[in-house]
Amino acid sequence: MITSTSNPKVKQLQLWQNKSKERKKDGVYIVEGIKMFLEAPADMIKEVYISQEILQNVQKESESNIFLKEKIQLIEFETITDDIFKKVSDTQTPQGILTVMKRPKYTLDDITASENPLVVVLENLQDPGNLGTILRTGEGAGISGVIMSEGTVDIYNPKTIRATMGSIYRVPFIYTSDLGETLQELKKKGIRTYAAHLKGETYYDSLSFKEPTAFLIGNEGNGLTDKTASLADSYIKIPMEGQVESLNAAVATSLLIYETHRQRSQK
Amino acid sequence: MITSTSNPKVKQLQLWQNKSKERKKDGVYIVEGIKMFLEAPADMIKEVYISQEILQNVQKESESNIFLKEKIQLIEFETITDDIFKKVSDTQTPQGILTVMKRPKYTLDDITASENPLVVVLENLQDPGNLGTILRTGEGAGISGVIMSEGTVDIYNPKTIRATMGSIYRVPFIYTSDLGETLQELKKKGIRTYAAHLKGETYYDSLSFKEPTAFLIGNEGNGLTDKTASLADSYIKIPMEGQVESLNAAVATSLLIYETHRQRSQK
Repeated sequence: MITSTSNPKVKQLQLWQNKSKERKKDGVYIVEGIKMFLEAPADMIKEVYISQEILQNVQKESESNIFLKEKIQLIEFETITDDIFKKVSDTQTPQGILTVMKRPKYTLDDITASENPLVVVLENLQDPGNLGTILRTGEGAGISGVIMSEGTVDIYNPKTIRATMGSIYRVPFIYTSDLGETLQELKKKGIRTYAAHLKGETYYDSLSFKEPTAFLIGNEGNGLTDKTASLADSYIKIPMEGQVESLNAAVATSLLIYETHRQRSQK
Repeated sequence: MITSTSNPKVKQLQLWQNKSKERKKDGVYIVEGIKMFLEAPADMIKEVYISQEILQNVQKESESNIFLKEKIQLIEFETITDDIFKKVSDTQTPQGILTVMKRPKYTLDDITASENPLVVVLENLQDPGNLGTILRTGEGAGISGVIMSEGTVDIYNPKTIRATMGSIYRVPFIYTSDLGETLQELKKKGIRTYAAHLKGETYYDSLSFKEPTAFLIGNEGNGLTDKTASLADSYIKIPMEGQVESLNAAVATSLLIYETHRQRSQK
């Protein structure tokens, strides 16, 4: 049992929690909570830390924690006193389980490999909650992956991870340093690219997305850059009543990918 | 010009900023920023405070602030030194305009008066950002109003107001202490109620919402209470691929109201 903040593992954890650079250097990210632990793919788990309190609860007979009990019997973990656990946790009300995950290494092929790709391309999205929500809704709508420009918020930001509700484990994603080149590759693979753009003249719900499709979504405040928008095959817009000038980026993305889901589900 | 924190107006502002009870008692709410000031309906503005810096910028000749210049010529306002302004502002990077608004008094009739009502009913929604996003998307999709249970987050929470991007001025809303009774009134008015519910057996995109419609959306973690769900005419669900168990409440609401918009726009 770890009982001191001077324990080297605690020091390493605190370094990872506080510095995204350190997480990146070591190829890890941190997830908190029972749900995120239960859903974590076993082969991607690097380390698991459980608070004394949670461990005692799990060891009691209880129907409610049967999955947790099973999973911790199968893996190695460290126990930490409750006080120290609070110090390594990033959340205000720690759930008593912290998992250090290995970062996956996806390629563009992982994102476009499915039979009928549906890809979300994000340029410079800044809000961690929006990115997480896009992964969560994206899994729900059956997207094949997410491509992000380098200027997009860190997908391993704790707020993003929480907002994905576990979809971070299951939706492939890549960052690209050359979005233009990546868009060209999508085109070569026969994927049609649609820019969500205020200058769009075609409503999204008047087009067919039954063929391989990628949606380009821009920054919350500024939308897509002209350069990126100009590379899209088509501009599309979402109809807006009243005085609304734009929609939240996660909402706009959700509408586009679920419209695609709706169309592809029709017989 | 206000130059001291002991100025009674500054004291009152700080009280309003810090205590939602005080805002409620006095029937006011506070909006910050240029966009929120520009869109504010003139007859609902109670007081306006402008920082010295912003006022000097506006008084310079500039194309970019022509709307701001026009609007402040038409209303009374107080100038505050930049230092004091920072102390009364709720935002980290104050935009230099703070407007005290009178709270509107809507009734259920304001929400159902339109020719073909589309109503969003929220039970115990907790996230201020979600509520604001629902108002913003709601205006975009052309909803006629929002009904909230008493347990729903305060719509005048600064985070909610920011997330509405101005829609708080234009989408009618009420809180109800008896959601069951309000749902009965909707039914009497010929509005069909659909509960977004995991037990739903009908996909939302297989139904017609061309007639008067209300969507019932529950709390982020727990969904609708059994009592409220049992009062709905139908349960509906949103299809979800992968291991996704539910969608973000604002995303789910957006999908339902935009599907309605899509159907009603078809000829």
